[in-house]
Amino acid sequence: MKNDKRLGRAKAIVLLSGGLDSATTLYYARDKGFLCECLSFDYGQRHSRELDSAKRIAKSAGCGHRVMKISLPWKGSSLLDKNIKIRGAKGRRALAGNSIPDTYVPGRNIIFLSFALSFAEAIKAKAIFIGANAVDYSGYPDCRPAFYTAFGSVIRTGTKCGVEKMPVKIMTPLINKTKAGIVELGSRLQVPFELTWSCYAGGLNPCGRCDSCFYRSKGFIEAGIPDPLFIQEV
Amino acid sequence: MKNDKRLGRAKAIVLLSGGLDSATTLYYARDKGFLCECLSFDYGQRHSRELDSAKRIAKSAGCGHRVMKISLPWKGSSLLDKNIKIRGAKGRRALAGNSIPDTYVPGRNIIFLSFALSFAEAIKAKAIFIGANAVDYSGYPDCRPAFYTAFGSVIRTGTKCGVEKMPVKIMTPLINKTKAGIVELGSRLQVPFELTWSCYAGGLNPCGRCDSCFYRSKGFIEAGIPDPLFIQEV
Repeated sequence: MKNDKRLGRAKAIVLLSGGLDSATTLYYARDKGFLCECLSFDYGQRHSRELDSAKRIAKSAGCGHRVMKISLPWKGSSLLDKNIKIRGAKGRRALAGNSIPDTYVPGRNIIFLSFALSFAEAIKAKAIFIGANAVDYSGYPDCRPAFYTAFGSVIRTGTKCGVEKMPVKIMTPLINKTKAGIVELGSRLQVPFELTWSCYAGGLNPCGRCDSCFYRSKGFIEAGIPDPLFIQEV
Repeated sequence: MKNDKRLGRAKAIVLLSGGLDSATTLYYARDKGFLCECLSFDYGQRHSRELDSAKRIAKSAGCGHRVMKISLPWKGSSLLDKNIKIRGAKGRRALAGNSIPDTYVPGRNIIFLSFALSFAEAIKAKAIFIGANAVDYSGYPDCRPAFYTAFGSVIRTGTKCGVEKMPVKIMTPLINKTKAGIVELGSRLQVPFELTWSCYAGGLNPCGRCDSCFYRSKGFIEAGIPDPLFIQEV
């Protein structure tokens, strides 16, 4: 999507979790000239560490930031239910199979995109950026290109902006990148990696064992760039 | 969708606003044998009258009921913003034109369906019922068949149940009915019309002037059935 700076800066909503991918996406959108409004969700995650990261990243990028609280009253994911154990190093297994991990939160990205869409229509933003990635990922169905294509047709058919032929665009700049490619892009855009948080667990340091730590570590190692968050065993 | 009672009752989520259409939809789903869980939203409406109605209707139908609070921190609709006046008798004008009224809430049904979908996956429900209607309606884009078709492809591509080829079905039994047809169906199903609330304004009695009152009144008059909520000027 071309952002014509002569017409003034177009607004964009950026879904910001506080992780590596969403931070890189924010810096990418900003680099393309968009006036970014960040949106994060407090949805009953096990810890608030990533929301703290999101806050700091939005501030470092000089962008607006809102946190929406949406406590889902139902369970069904190890990310929400402390009684379900997060299984370690799932990523390594997922590389072989194609199963959906227990960290899947039913409908999560659909809910997030719906709110972003509502926000976008309310402030007349042109685009929603989301750091979904379908290469080095855990197998979540709501991270794959087909889902974003389908959501695009929801916008075209089910919103005022869509009916008026000016649909908000869903932008997934990382969707086909490897994790190393994301680290390289983030590095070029000077993303403050030290502020990001990817680990599913809270704590002072990343656990180094969960799916998210596994892919992050893989990305930094393959890109040959040190991860400021922890010492890597290469 | 056939609900095979020999296999036990399948669960369904019913989006229940408290109005005529959603109440009729609930009674329809229940009549089809579904074990219904009702879901309502407290999203910053001007009044809580319809939520009280929803509560009573769910109780009268003997179904579970949850109210989710999702205050949108942005405005953009006369239903949410008391500074924007709700324009009266919009329906009569909408019959001639095709404009989207100021009561449109950006992304509302998309947000509602996303939560319903999340709930459905969490409790393994087979269907989501929504009382959308695209005949005697105000012109909201998220009430038309094309939108529900598009949302169906979001479910097939972006959820665990979809990937596993058991997608939750979106059921819109009223979509092609006239308001009179809805009143007739509701009457057959013994919907407690006296508990429903359709008016955009709060108060003890319906205003009789807003879009929603207009269509409701039209439906009861054309069906030749008295509306227990107010005396009609025929």
